[in-house]
Amino acid sequence: MTKEIIAVDLGGTQLRAARYDAGLALLTREHTLTGADDGLEAVLARIKAIISLVMPSKRERVQGIGISAPGPLNSKTGVIVSPPNLPGWHDVPLGAIIEAEFGLPVYISNDANVAALAEASQGAAQGFRHVCYITVSTGIGSGIICAGRLVTGQAGLAAELGHIPIIVEAGRVSSVELEAAGPAIARQARQALAAGENTALHDLVAGDLERLDARLVGEAASKGDRLAIDLLAQAGRIIGLGIVTALHLFNPQIIVIGGGVSKTGELLFAPIRQTVREHVLDSAFTAGLRIVPAALGDDVALVGAAVLAATQGGDLDIGDLDRRFS
Amino acid sequence: MTKEIIAVDLGGTQLRAARYDAGLALLTREHTLTGADDGLEAVLARIKAIISLVMPSKRERVQGIGISAPGPLNSKTGVIVSPPNLPGWHDVPLGAIIEAEFGLPVYISNDANVAALAEASQGAAQGFRHVCYITVSTGIGSGIICAGRLVTGQAGLAAELGHIPIIVEAGRVSSVELEAAGPAIARQARQALAAGENTALHDLVAGDLERLDARLVGEAASKGDRLAIDLLAQAGRIIGLGIVTALHLFNPQIIVIGGGVSKTGELLFAPIRQTVREHVLDSAFTAGLRIVPAALGDDVALVGAAVLAATQGGDLDIGDLDRRFS
Repeated sequence: MTKEIIAVDLGGTQLRAARYDAGLALLTREHTLTGADDGLEAVLARIKAIISLVMPSKRERVQGIGISAPGPLNSKTGVIVSPPNLPGWHDVPLGAIIEAEFGLPVYISNDANVAALAEASQGAAQGFRHVCYITVSTGIGSGIICAGRLVTGQAGLAAELGHIPIIVEAGRVSSVELEAAGPAIARQARQALAAGENTALHDLVAGDLERLDARLVGEAASKGDRLAIDLLAQAGRIIGLGIVTALHLFNPQIIVIGGGVSKTGELLFAPIRQTVREHVLDSAFTAGLRIVPAALGDDVALVGAAVLAATQGGDLDIGDLDRRFS
Repeated sequence: MTKEIIAVDLGGTQLRAARYDAGLALLTREHTLTGADDGLEAVLARIKAIISLVMPSKRERVQGIGISAPGPLNSKTGVIVSPPNLPGWHDVPLGAIIEAEFGLPVYISNDANVAALAEASQGAAQGFRHVCYITVSTGIGSGIICAGRLVTGQAGLAAELGHIPIIVEAGRVSSVELEAAGPAIARQARQALAAGENTALHDLVAGDLERLDARLVGEAASKGDRLAIDLLAQAGRIIGLGIVTALHLFNPQIIVIGGGVSKTGELLFAPIRQTVREHVLDSAFTAGLRIVPAALGDDVALVGAAVLAATQGGDLDIGDLDRRFS
């Protein structure tokens, strides 16, 4: 059981592949552009080519190929449904295509799920067996590890914390993502500007409301702008309620938060922690609980894809993996 | 591996114990009153005595003892925290006490978790590996089986679907249980009566508002009373949103609903199903999904406690258990 692993990170812009040994040490690594605008067939050819580049001469040394891909996708069938950032991709059986090409087992999961595996094996949640990873950027995704195993559900659709329904004003049902992800923060900022609120954001956008995004709100907040601070706090409260739901349903040891919006740091984390304290059922759920930023950088999806393959799609216990490595 | 199992159902009123063979066929069964008012020591003595009654003469034939107990409890340490219906019980190490008495492994879990195991092994969810069990009565509890294993979390506190936070009027944070369990239905009915609404409930309570409970609301609704029907529908919508959260986080194959309030049948199930259809992220989450009433009767906790022991606290795959039995 000292076989090697191939990992692929298929993103809307970047395409990366790497080969790891069974202890998850990096052996070789390649990257190129996805070229998504060239269409399905061109991208598939590039995926096959970059896998070939990292494949060892003796293919039997490889135990499997793990792929991080944009959702929605069915991790049980390996079918990519229709990712917004891969034009022309509709119900593409990527798993079957790559398996047929290389004759190796292929495991596919979405970016949030593989990030959870990566953070649990080499990142902020290393050594933990009950982990909730949340990414806050254009959307809100999550990956959940329960007793060492990735929570996938019957069709690999599980762990969509961003899509927890929440009731907002007048009984309307919205979701954590629609109220707290980057576009929601930007939308609320635009509404405040249009209403003439006093904020440094007026200067930052210089009259062009379209330029206003969550990054600019974060910038203004870090300089002490009251409106921007309040907008991040409001997002933090909504995300905090989502985390309370995760605590009550999964009773994890650690919450890891990544994604672009999480880079605003304590401006987001402090209201999250306060909301969790206020609304958790019992302090037993928060005893020893850590709420921490993600630790891994650009290669998080590659590392996660490798762990995905090593755990056979997240079905094996990540703790057994650690013991096998050591 | 053909060892026998002892199961105990410790309730606020009834105390039951049974012995099962490794295929979960009932060998012997005893029941008595818990006598909770006699206090901790008396109840502990009765638990030991009823276990002795069902214990085989050759104790080494028993692989373990499973106990269904009222929450809150820590299933990892076997400590019963302070159940409202067991006066005098505070942080009682029931697991350690029973282990010391009989020299056998003891597994303890709350009634909703063991009911989930029971329904998945012999009830409405038999043969399914991704199961969400919800009980709606005085409270709302749940037990969740994910890829064949019980979701327990780091301290056995997981699967508290009733405590999902929801935002109600004016931004106030409440929970699924506080808005949709039996007492919530009764509270809303009392408010409507006090406000002078036209309903058959006036006659059913005969002037004594204290008599009004969820059972009476169910009775009035089954006779076509509009207010009562609306109250159950409102509870169904809240429970439905909780189920949407469970679908998005666990992607189960089947939702089993038990507990007293669930006996109102389609008056509750129809609004649940409609809410799920309206608010699920994507039809992939509901493709093939079943939302069904619980199938097991009074012995659900005993059967579940036996499965709990057979799966070593829910850590073993319930599917492997089936294969072992067959």
